[in-house]
Amino acid sequence: MFDRIDEMSVNAIRALSIDMIENAKSGHPGLPLDAAPMGYVLWAKQMKFNPKDTHWINRDRFILSAGHGSALLYSLLHLVGSKVSIEDLKRFKTYSSNTPGHPEYGVTEGVDASTGPLGQGFGMALGMAMAEKHMAARYNKPDFPIIDHYTFVLSGDGDLMEGISHEAASLAGHQKLNKLIVLYDSNDVSLDGPTSNAVSDDTRKRFEAYGWNYEFVKDGNGLEEIHHAITRAKGQSEKPTIIEIKTIIGYGAPNEGTNLVHGNILGKEGALSAKKKYGWEHPEFTIPQEVYNRFKETAEKGMKAEEDWIQLFKAYKEKYPELADEFETAIHGELPKDWDRDLPVYQAGDAEAGRMTSYKMIQQLSKNIPYFWGGSADLFSSNRTNVKDEEIFQPETPEGRNIWFGVREFAEAAAVNGIALHGGSRVYASTFLVFSDYMRNAIRLSALQKLPVTYVFTHDSIALGPDGPTHQPIEHLTSFRAMPGVVLFRPCDPNEAIASWKLAIQSKDHPALLALSRQDLPVLPGTGELAGEGVARGAYVLSKQQGDKPEGILIASGSEVPLVIEAQKILANSNIDVSVVSMPSMELFDQQSDEYKDSVLPHDVTKRVSAEMGSTLCWGRYVGLDGASIGIDRFGASANADELIRLNGFTVENVVETFKSLKMKKQLV
Amino acid sequence: MFDRIDEMSVNAIRALSIDMIENAKSGHPGLPLDAAPMGYVLWAKQMKFNPKDTHWINRDRFILSAGHGSALLYSLLHLVGSKVSIEDLKRFKTYSSNTPGHPEYGVTEGVDASTGPLGQGFGMALGMAMAEKHMAARYNKPDFPIIDHYTFVLSGDGDLMEGISHEAASLAGHQKLNKLIVLYDSNDVSLDGPTSNAVSDDTRKRFEAYGWNYEFVKDGNGLEEIHHAITRAKGQSEKPTIIEIKTIIGYGAPNEGTNLVHGNILGKEGALSAKKKYGWEHPEFTIPQEVYNRFKETAEKGMKAEEDWIQLFKAYKEKYPELADEFETAIHGELPKDWDRDLPVYQAGDAEAGRMTSYKMIQQLSKNIPYFWGGSADLFSSNRTNVKDEEIFQPETPEGRNIWFGVREFAEAAAVNGIALHGGSRVYASTFLVFSDYMRNAIRLSALQKLPVTYVFTHDSIALGPDGPTHQPIEHLTSFRAMPGVVLFRPCDPNEAIASWKLAIQSKDHPALLALSRQDLPVLPGTGELAGEGVARGAYVLSKQQGDKPEGILIASGSEVPLVIEAQKILANSNIDVSVVSMPSMELFDQQSDEYKDSVLPHDVTKRVSAEMGSTLCWGRYVGLDGASIGIDRFGASANADELIRLNGFTVENVVETFKSLKMKKQLV
Repeated sequence: MFDRIDEMSVNAIRALSIDMIENAKSGHPGLPLDAAPMGYVLWAKQMKFNPKDTHWINRDRFILSAGHGSALLYSLLHLVGSKVSIEDLKRFKTYSSNTPGHPEYGVTEGVDASTGPLGQGFGMALGMAMAEKHMAARYNKPDFPIIDHYTFVLSGDGDLMEGISHEAASLAGHQKLNKLIVLYDSNDVSLDGPTSNAVSDDTRKRFEAYGWNYEFVKDGNGLEEIHHAITRAKGQSEKPTIIEIKTIIGYGAPNEGTNLVHGNILGKEGALSAKKKYGWEHPEFTIPQEVYNRFKETAEKGMKAEEDWIQLFKAYKEKYPELADEFETAIHGELPKDWDRDLPVYQAGDAEAGRMTSYKMIQQLSKNIPYFWGGSADLFSSNRTNVKDEEIFQPETPEGRNIWFGVREFAEAAAVNGIALHGGSRVYASTFLVFSDYMRNAIRLSALQKLPVTYVFTHDSIALGPDGPTHQPIEHLTSFRAMPGVVLFRPCDPNEAIASWKLAIQSKDHPALLALSRQDLPVLPGTGELAGEGVARGAYVLSKQQGDKPEGILIASGSEVPLVIEAQKILANSNIDVSVVSMPSMELFDQQSDEYKDSVLPHDVTKRVSAEMGSTLCWGRYVGLDGASIGIDRFGASANADELIRLNGFTVENVVETFKSLKMKKQLV
Repeated sequence: MFDRIDEMSVNAIRALSIDMIENAKSGHPGLPLDAAPMGYVLWAKQMKFNPKDTHWINRDRFILSAGHGSALLYSLLHLVGSKVSIEDLKRFKTYSSNTPGHPEYGVTEGVDASTGPLGQGFGMALGMAMAEKHMAARYNKPDFPIIDHYTFVLSGDGDLMEGISHEAASLAGHQKLNKLIVLYDSNDVSLDGPTSNAVSDDTRKRFEAYGWNYEFVKDGNGLEEIHHAITRAKGQSEKPTIIEIKTIIGYGAPNEGTNLVHGNILGKEGALSAKKKYGWEHPEFTIPQEVYNRFKETAEKGMKAEEDWIQLFKAYKEKYPELADEFETAIHGELPKDWDRDLPVYQAGDAEAGRMTSYKMIQQLSKNIPYFWGGSADLFSSNRTNVKDEEIFQPETPEGRNIWFGVREFAEAAAVNGIALHGGSRVYASTFLVFSDYMRNAIRLSALQKLPVTYVFTHDSIALGPDGPTHQPIEHLTSFRAMPGVVLFRPCDPNEAIASWKLAIQSKDHPALLALSRQDLPVLPGTGELAGEGVARGAYVLSKQQGDKPEGILIASGSEVPLVIEAQKILANSNIDVSVVSMPSMELFDQQSDEYKDSVLPHDVTKRVSAEMGSTLCWGRYVGLDGASIGIDRFGASANADELIRLNGFTVENVVETFKSLKMKKQLV
């Protein structure tokens, strides 16, 4: 079924990839040259997608988990007629081009996920396949399969060595995600050399152990073989499939089969030699019309598929108008009109742990937003992120909205990225704040891809007590505040917690991180009126000084705000008149106008003390050279929480003494 | 072979665990109650260790990867006669006790690794088994098996769900670490409930895919069965072994077999009921003498084993005095006398990438320190951390000193922790700085355990260029500076890089992180004389102002130091007299005396500008409210490095303009 033009099309992908890389004098030719055939078969013959509308919700997804092979993806996008021109290919890896070194979601039309950090493409694909299954369960009706697509991944050897591939594959097998299909570019070579120096896994056995279907293609250039394997994979009704396709890295290049061709350009002669081997005699960046024509058939098939779907959805909308409305709201990333009805309300005198306020919010948000779902890495009972009236997301109950990620934090975060990328959901993930370490690079990818996922991180300080230093976060608040594109909230009481969740759920372009307490936090005077706007602005004067201008400022976040409010009272008894600033979100505060910032932290008030049960590193910018930070710059300990808090200096007395001991600001010499 | 006293001893472990947890009113009874039999068999019958000398280098290692089951470990340590008394058990989870919530290395004699963050015990055990094999290859001689021991791990279901278990098991299988034996406490329950909600792996198939031997014990109370399985595992000559032992979580407790017993105390009645089921009729914290006597046999066997070994080592030392000297120096964590001979020397006019200076250092350190080894997560070619005259650590060449970790960053870091914990090596790990994210919690465990491992993180800024934002670190420098117990170095030129490596290799109690450039860094005037002391102090005046006191200070680290030196010259042309401070290590600077700090950053000089190609968050504490930080608080981009550097404001002009635009310090109102 494959002819000469198909072969030529495969070589067109290779030639374009070579030209891009040579022109950029940088890139990874190894994968594009060996995986061009599988890329071709998939894109030209198997995938359902419309190159003219890369956002169609029911398209098949494609994730190049081995993101360094980006030239393959850009070549394909160009050939099928997406918005990647020859000029774009010539701008490969240059500033502000749509052909960056690794695929970037939001930068290039048709790129379904940002990849490069190995293994995470696989993890995001897990999430996409979960989203597909969940949405199909919720929205599909007899004769109306409005969500019905595959998720394809192209993985290299490196992806499968990464631990996240275990987490993701194990969960995918458990969830019976039969529409997840991984093409494994098995070339036995990684950056440093033959993989036989580092790995001896039996891939078939490994994936069968996870409950996967395994297919083997012995010749990576065998178009028919690849095609049939994909077809068999599509026929699976219960198992995800991995197709191991044996290839020769850098196929056709002088150094084919070695790591020298993984990430080094071929050079002029190498490029010529490879093209000669392919029988490719066209000038650089020049594609014969018959190849374009062949790809056009693909494009037309894809356009037709979307047109059919649009008709289907029209009929669906007539028959199920409410569900269709919800579906449209969901896939446009909007919230339902009444998303914030009946949210919990707190009164003075109430006290509640941050995680419990979050629990109540999640219950109500779940009622208000039918496409809101999420999970925990086996810490539902502690994070309190389970929705009690909803089922577990399982093969038998794919409509379930509680995702049991298992003890797999990294895959959890990658999966929620995938769910968000898929579209149609509002999603959250949870674990202890300290274990955010396990998922850190996936949170970075949430931020880089501007995904509005919410991370619920409970047990936000040493106040978790006896579990000890391995469980007590210290550096985590600072480390996330340093990460671009995330917004971290550390609310001081139930009112701020509600306000934080409200901002998190309304995000359109960034992940929100909620750092929530295990211990009770009393409702503080004033937050009822101030928290809404105050949290949105990142910091605000929660308790004013008595006079016109404060003599000093006490700044705190989270569970330390009540402490500094007490200290303010004691200081007032000594006729020291300070204000108290609650700072739930540094990132949001930093975005405010200079005027607002100065109203909260007047520049000429330099006697400032911050208090937060975490690293002091990030507080210097607010307290300045003349201020002081009460924090924790060592590891915690296994002890009773109250004792630990006291031993670390989080007492009213220490705040008061620290303020009193601040030196008067020195004059300029 | 097991009798009534053995059964009673198993129940003694259970009873003590219950008593500890009830007394502390906190803890995880699930594992200790179900795993007491395997713990007993292992410790009483199979393990070679001397409870009176828990540091003996040739002891079998034991790692409780499921660290929440700490009560099991403390009970065993008590019963075998280590330094854990009944009083200590009564102080379980209290401040400064030697029985913290999770096992902590360095806190409790006989605890071989700090565990709790799941999966990492498994990863550290990988490293220990690698260290054993490597040291055996180097030091053992015919009839002198001075290193010859097993590494035992007790893992739970959670450990095996974690991705790191894949990375570690895959590498262990590849390395044919036959002396690594994992007891898998297979109780089918995790914190949130039955594991069947989240995982369906076929463990046998999975581990066989990694090249492991698999043993199955169907009754977790079957002492003989467990014993024989361990004996068979010890008999393996090529394969690591996992023994899946089916248990009932919280065996004997009213809620046995459910997650309710995982992390909740039994309560008075529950405790009584469980003890009744065991036929245990002794008062709390009371152990019959016949149980102590039985454990005494174990202890005596262990003492005898060490005595024999001491004799063996004496004879070895006579026959191989040099090797024995080296061995002793190594296991005491010392460096050879001439460890710093022939280190690279640089001249004015030289220029070299940080990673290349590091490469040269590693070559020479490797010559000088025969027990110095390390590896890369498939980035040797980029990190330049391979030793060219040494072999790959492989089954055929276990004396090899280049460890190919594969694309497994997390296991890499856990493994170097294990190698360091084992003793007898100086070890390093490497990857790109941005991918430190993948290993972050293991680095935290390096710090918490005070392990002197060196992390070589290359490609330390956006200056890596075209690979784009997924590969460009931004927040990483700040995020490590916030982590307690690590020392991060970001050297500005070859002299500082040498000084940094020298400090790293001399560390006895902390991990060192080297953030190294991909691009060339010129040797700066003055570093030849100043870098040694200057780096040790964390920051120093590299280029003085002209007058007595600077008008302002330019502070920078790494590749930005040359930039501020140029800016200093330009400012001098405008009669603005500033000093330049190179700050390779904030952590070390913060440890200096106030006097030294003030000599570098005089408190009354408040016009300060910092420059570093990373998050500005941590610089506020040095530049104060009146200073400014030039940094990068957004993601990078795929582009030519020079263009990217310029676009992010790292130009001499921008430094000069930023300094000039600093407002004069406002006066106090």
